[in-house]
Amino acid sequence: MGAARLTVDLEAVAANWRALDGASGSVVETGAVVKADGYGLDAGRVAKRLAREGVRSFFVAVASEGAKVRRAVGEGPEIFVFSGHMAGDTKVLREAGLVPLLNSAEQAARHLDAGGMPFGVQLDSGMNRLGFEPADWAVLRDRLGTAGPRLVMSHLACADEPDHPMNAAQLAAFRGMTDGLGFRRSLAATGGVLLGPEYHFDLTRPGVGLYGGLPFEAARPVVRLEAPVIQVRSLGPGETVGYGNTWEAEAEARIATIAVGYADGLIRAMGLAARVFAAGVACKVVGRVSMDLITVDVTHLEREPEVLEILGPHQKVDDLAEAAGTIGYEILTSLGARYERVYEGGA
Amino acid sequence: MGAARLTVDLEAVAANWRALDGASGSVVETGAVVKADGYGLDAGRVAKRLAREGVRSFFVAVASEGAKVRRAVGEGPEIFVFSGHMAGDTKVLREAGLVPLLNSAEQAARHLDAGGMPFGVQLDSGMNRLGFEPADWAVLRDRLGTAGPRLVMSHLACADEPDHPMNAAQLAAFRGMTDGLGFRRSLAATGGVLLGPEYHFDLTRPGVGLYGGLPFEAARPVVRLEAPVIQVRSLGPGETVGYGNTWEAEAEARIATIAVGYADGLIRAMGLAARVFAAGVACKVVGRVSMDLITVDVTHLEREPEVLEILGPHQKVDDLAEAAGTIGYEILTSLGARYERVYEGGA
Repeated sequence: MGAARLTVDLEAVAANWRALDGASGSVVETGAVVKADGYGLDAGRVAKRLAREGVRSFFVAVASEGAKVRRAVGEGPEIFVFSGHMAGDTKVLREAGLVPLLNSAEQAARHLDAGGMPFGVQLDSGMNRLGFEPADWAVLRDRLGTAGPRLVMSHLACADEPDHPMNAAQLAAFRGMTDGLGFRRSLAATGGVLLGPEYHFDLTRPGVGLYGGLPFEAARPVVRLEAPVIQVRSLGPGETVGYGNTWEAEAEARIATIAVGYADGLIRAMGLAARVFAAGVACKVVGRVSMDLITVDVTHLEREPEVLEILGPHQKVDDLAEAAGTIGYEILTSLGARYERVYEGGA
Repeated sequence: MGAARLTVDLEAVAANWRALDGASGSVVETGAVVKADGYGLDAGRVAKRLAREGVRSFFVAVASEGAKVRRAVGEGPEIFVFSGHMAGDTKVLREAGLVPLLNSAEQAARHLDAGGMPFGVQLDSGMNRLGFEPADWAVLRDRLGTAGPRLVMSHLACADEPDHPMNAAQLAAFRGMTDGLGFRRSLAATGGVLLGPEYHFDLTRPGVGLYGGLPFEAARPVVRLEAPVIQVRSLGPGETVGYGNTWEAEAEARIATIAVGYADGLIRAMGLAARVFAAGVACKVVGRVSMDLITVDVTHLEREPEVLEILGPHQKVDDLAEAAGTIGYEILTSLGARYERVYEGGA
C-alpha cells in the first residue's frame, strides 16, 4: 500500500438515493446530480449504479460531463446540462443526446438555430447565478413553451438553512413564473427535498446527499480514505515538525508521517484543526499539511499504526470539512487522482 | 468553449529550469521534482520536456508516480522516490527501475531483503517529517554506505524564508551527518537553490520554481486559465447573488457567471478576495464560489466579456493563492480534471 486508498461504497450511494426518493411523494420522480465527476467519485460508475436503481434523469454541469455519463448509462435516461447550450456545445449535445437547460435568450436562440434538439429551461428565482430572468422569460415563454421543454427548473440559494426567508421567496418566484403553464417542473436538490412537499414539484434532483454529505444528516457515509504510515519517529521537547516550524513538541512525542497531502485534496487550510484515526482512536494532525505528506501525533497510541483513517466510520466528510473551514461538497470534489481507488457495491 | 481551458506552457517550464540550473554552479547537477503529477500539470509531459532539456534526475512522491514518469522519459534518467521503499512497493520499484530514498531502518531492511536494487537515503536534518534520524543513521551508515547509495539527501523546512535560523541549523545538521563520507549529496529544492552555493552540494532539485511559483520570483508563468461566460444579467439594488445570499448589489450591477468552480480547484475559500480579468481589466468575484460556477461583477466593463482570465499574464498563481489564503503550490496541484487542457512548447 504505497499510495493512500479511497474506497467508494456505491451501495451506500444507492441507499442514500432510495432514502431521498422515499422522502418525496410517490408521484414525484427522483433524479440524481452527477456533476463534477459524480462529486469526485466517478460520474460513470455512480450513474451506472443509480440507473440500475431506477434513476431516469441525470444532471451534469457541462456538456463534456454529459457525454461521459451517456457512455455509462446507455441510451435510455435523460441527461440534463445545467450550463445549457454554450457556444461550441452543439455537436456534443447532439451526439450524446443531452438536454441543455437553456439559461438565457442568447442560449435559446443558439439552440433553436441548431434545430430540432430537445431542451429544458432554467429560471432564475433569485439566486442570480444561472437561468432566465423573469422579464426575459416572459418574452420567450410562449415560444419556448410551444417547442416543448422537457423540464423547467430553478435552484435554491439557501436550502441548507430551512428557516431562511429566501426559500419561500424563491418558491413564490418560481411558482409565479411557471404556475398554470403545464410544464414538468423541478426546484429541489438535496436541501429542497428536505424542505417538504411544496418544494418537490414533478422531479427532485438530489446531489450531495447521495454522496453522504450535509444537509442530509441521515445519509450513509460513502467514502473511506486510509493512508499508509511511511515512518514513525521520536521527538524530544522543543523539536519542531514540518514547514515553517509551526508545531513544537512540548514533551517527548511520537510523530507518524502518512503518504497523503494537499495534492490529494486534503485542503491545506485544515492544518492543526484536523484529526485522523488509528483503529478508532483520534490522533491530531501536527505541523503544516504539505503536498504529499501529513504528520500526526501518535504519542498516545499503544502500538505504532500502519494505516491511518482520514475519512470513514470515525470521521465523515463534513467533520473533515469543518476542520478545513469549508463544506463537505468541497472535500468530496477535491479528492485527488493519486489514490488507489476501490469501488464496492457497483452495478 | 463549453469547459474552461487550461493552457500549459512547457517551454516556460524549460526556461525556468534553465534559469534555476544557471543559479547553481556549473559542477552542480540540476534535477527536477515532478511529484503530484508534475504539480498538477502532467508529470509525463513535464518530465519528457525536461529530459530533452538535459535533466537526468527526477523526483516523485510515491512509486506509482515514478512508474508514470519512467514511461514518459524512457530508460536513461534516474527517478528518485521520496517516500522510499514502502510495504508493497517492491514490484513497481523494480519494474520501473526507480530509486527509493530510504527513510528508516525499517525501509532499509525491506530494501536490502529485496536484494540488489539501487537506492538513495533521505536524512532528517530537523524537519521531522521524512528521513533517518541522526541516531538511526549512525547505526546504519556504514552498512548502507557499503551498498552504495546513489544519493544522500535531506529537505529544508524554512527555505522560503532566507533569514530563518532553521536554514543554517539544517545545513549544519546535514553536513554533520554526511561530511567526509564521499556520498553524492542534495539538500536544495527551489528555495534552497536561491539560498546560495553552500546549500547546493552535488545536485539541486527544484520543484515549484519550474512551474512558475514562489519563492522563485523571476519565474516565467507557466499556466493560463480562462473560463467562458455562460450568461450576464442585470441586478437592481438589494438583489443578492449566490449561495447564502452573501453578496448584495448596492446599485445597478451586471453579473457574469463563468463555468468554473471549486470542483475545478478554484478553492472555495478565495471567495470575495479574488479577482479575474477581462482583457486586462480586473473584475471582482462576488457571492460564494460554487462547485461549477463563479459569479463576477462586470458592471464597469464597456463590453460583455465572452471569456474571463483566472490565471495568466494579469494574475499569477501566487496572486490567486493569496486571495485564497494559501500558497501557489496548492493552487497548482488543485487544478482540476474538467478543463480542456492545451499544451504548448512540448517535447
